[in-house]
Amino acid sequence: MTKKKNTINHTQKNTPKVSPLAPDHFPTMLPVPGVHLGAVAAGLKYTGRPDLMLAVFTEGSQAAGVYTKSKTPGAPVDWTKAALDDSGGRARCLLVNAGNANAFTGKKGNKTTMEVASALAKLTNCNKNEVLQASTGVIGEILPAAPLIKNAKLMVNGLSATLWLDAAKSITTTDTFPKGASVVTSIGGVPVTITAIAKGSGMVAPDMATMLGFIFTNANLSAACLQSILSELTDKSFNAITVDSDTSTSDMVLAIATGRQANPDQITDPNAPELDSFKNKLQAVLLDLAHQVVKDGEGARKFIEIQISGAENDTAAKIIAKSVANSPLVKTAIAGEDPNWGRIIMAVGKSGEKVDRDQIKLWIGDQLVAHNGLVHNRYNEAEAKSYMKQPTIVLKIDAGTGGDGLATVWTCDLTHDYISINADYRS
Amino acid sequence: MTKKKNTINHTQKNTPKVSPLAPDHFPTMLPVPGVHLGAVAAGLKYTGRPDLMLAVFTEGSQAAGVYTKSKTPGAPVDWTKAALDDSGGRARCLLVNAGNANAFTGKKGNKTTMEVASALAKLTNCNKNEVLQASTGVIGEILPAAPLIKNAKLMVNGLSATLWLDAAKSITTTDTFPKGASVVTSIGGVPVTITAIAKGSGMVAPDMATMLGFIFTNANLSAACLQSILSELTDKSFNAITVDSDTSTSDMVLAIATGRQANPDQITDPNAPELDSFKNKLQAVLLDLAHQVVKDGEGARKFIEIQISGAENDTAAKIIAKSVANSPLVKTAIAGEDPNWGRIIMAVGKSGEKVDRDQIKLWIGDQLVAHNGLVHNRYNEAEAKSYMKQPTIVLKIDAGTGGDGLATVWTCDLTHDYISINADYRS
Repeated sequence: MTKKKNTINHTQKNTPKVSPLAPDHFPTMLPVPGVHLGAVAAGLKYTGRPDLMLAVFTEGSQAAGVYTKSKTPGAPVDWTKAALDDSGGRARCLLVNAGNANAFTGKKGNKTTMEVASALAKLTNCNKNEVLQASTGVIGEILPAAPLIKNAKLMVNGLSATLWLDAAKSITTTDTFPKGASVVTSIGGVPVTITAIAKGSGMVAPDMATMLGFIFTNANLSAACLQSILSELTDKSFNAITVDSDTSTSDMVLAIATGRQANPDQITDPNAPELDSFKNKLQAVLLDLAHQVVKDGEGARKFIEIQISGAENDTAAKIIAKSVANSPLVKTAIAGEDPNWGRIIMAVGKSGEKVDRDQIKLWIGDQLVAHNGLVHNRYNEAEAKSYMKQPTIVLKIDAGTGGDGLATVWTCDLTHDYISINADYRS
Repeated sequence: MTKKKNTINHTQKNTPKVSPLAPDHFPTMLPVPGVHLGAVAAGLKYTGRPDLMLAVFTEGSQAAGVYTKSKTPGAPVDWTKAALDDSGGRARCLLVNAGNANAFTGKKGNKTTMEVASALAKLTNCNKNEVLQASTGVIGEILPAAPLIKNAKLMVNGLSATLWLDAAKSITTTDTFPKGASVVTSIGGVPVTITAIAKGSGMVAPDMATMLGFIFTNANLSAACLQSILSELTDKSFNAITVDSDTSTSDMVLAIATGRQANPDQITDPNAPELDSFKNKLQAVLLDLAHQVVKDGEGARKFIEIQISGAENDTAAKIIAKSVANSPLVKTAIAGEDPNWGRIIMAVGKSGEKVDRDQIKLWIGDQLVAHNGLVHNRYNEAEAKSYMKQPTIVLKIDAGTGGDGLATVWTCDLTHDYISINADYRS
């Protein structure tokens, strides 16, 4: 299966090499005590770039995961879920490859994950169920274990605490920039580091999608406590973004807590007050990465925030927000910098959730565009058009039910480059 | 609100004037006893083309409707639903305009539909609740009643039984060709005509969407009988197509039966055996129009049929089919003539319905591509690539549950022209 010529008469010459919404630079990434990294160009699909990463964790590390809801998950998703269940949340290493998702590969796919786990357990001196695996890339092609194992052997003797940029690059597919975030927080007065990487960039919705996120911290938390925190915070970050409504077979967010902080007491209660600052900072890291994923959505030129209020409850609010965020007609209007607000109302209406048509309010930026079931009499279209030229667009919608449901969802616009990338590229 | 320049650096010069999937010619449209038509260029939005149609029906005509499921329906949808409820399914005329959907126009929108109904009731000598109305076009702009009424008055004195082409043109927005179908069938040995028009073409899904369909027949059926038949047949035609997953505020399918056939006895039982041929022919007309709508999907270059079997039940099968049909990654792959079957599996997996990953079968055309959870060992990619170059693509998927759920759904590919049309055009 080779890369093929685009049969549509549009070249990719306008496709930016790097998303116009990308951050200025890759952030300073702090080492995390107990985490050591390797990255290598294994040549699985790409040439001249790293496409395989290995992270090895100190003994006693605790892990938690959130996974794709696809009914056709890839073999590494099945493996990692089962391994963490089996080990009770203990983890000692993580191997991630890009270019081949090892999804819809049947028993051969499972054979690969088992062989990799056996080899890595030997290499890193742990149990098989402490080996975590993730893959992203083409669906349906067989991924042999041999090159993964060979390259893991090469990496394991040269691990480093600082190889974050290479690690972030190695997990990308159509991403136009590597994604990282790193903060210092504290638990019980003791400093704790959180450093994380992620990849996008198409197929990001409605939940998880071709999105990988790996969060590393030296906090001393039990696996169950970490799982509870990760699940809650993912819901309002990685699971509140969408690029094109497609959901990947392969994706996961893993959090690993090595416990290598000065405080020797493991925290087991996710609601412990001394975790407040840690949770706030972790949420900021997850949001930062989730926004980077959206800003690198295939073909993205606009970053769109959709705030819903006045829905019956938070679940309804999120469904309405995603209905707007996933509407091709809304996304193309924003790509065209057209304040075509009727399409936004259409998308609110099609969500299926309760709304009161004659009480809906809609703001584009800070301008009230519509209320009482029709356009506001002071609506200034020139002002709205000018607003639409900005790189970040905020849409606020009150669904009018009088309920207190709230949600915020982020997405990007739908441009010619999305078509060019996806009609042309096989990943 | 004026048409604006495309701010994306892609011109529309490659946008075909007429969809490459369009039929060779507009069909021969048979007059329907009891139906008289007018069409006029009212200048509501477009210039140099008809954009308003009036159909007047003989006394005793029965009508049935299927409407958008949007929670923000346009005023004409509310009007027509309520009118038919109120009149017990009697109808005497239908006014349809293109260019302004009279949707999200609050009380002003209702005022317009009421004024139009009053004026048309006088003009056609009927009750207000026998006046049907439909609008399609821009959402959120006020539609004044005056030009509608003025032009209805112009039309009413020059009605014709043969003005089908003008009528079909007058209801279009971004459609690239007028859509019609006409057949002769019989009920109880007596010939009956069915003649119908429809419009697309974006925003067509998941149910009804910016799609208008008007079916006229001289069959002698009660309104309740007609409603039962229309609802059942719409489910497997107009409600089994999707262009972009968006759902319009405005859309409806109306069927009008004038009863002007030689057989004087009104049929009230939708399951009466003498209706078998009529129902088969009506289904063919609805499917023909629904396929024309898909073939005129914005930017469409491929007509795609998705057949699901082996789902738990028909509802599950339709959800899986629509998940594939609405997947931007599947639609762009087909636009690129790429047999990227992994994306199809992804879309099956994201539907949320039960599937058995390791029992799924996938055919592209007649070629078995995948089974037993992985690619078929005799899968011939060159053959699949060659097949993808055809204008009609058939995907067959067995969901593997062993259930007997079946569904077929039709859609089109997602191309650069969809973006050009929708980032540039406000309708």
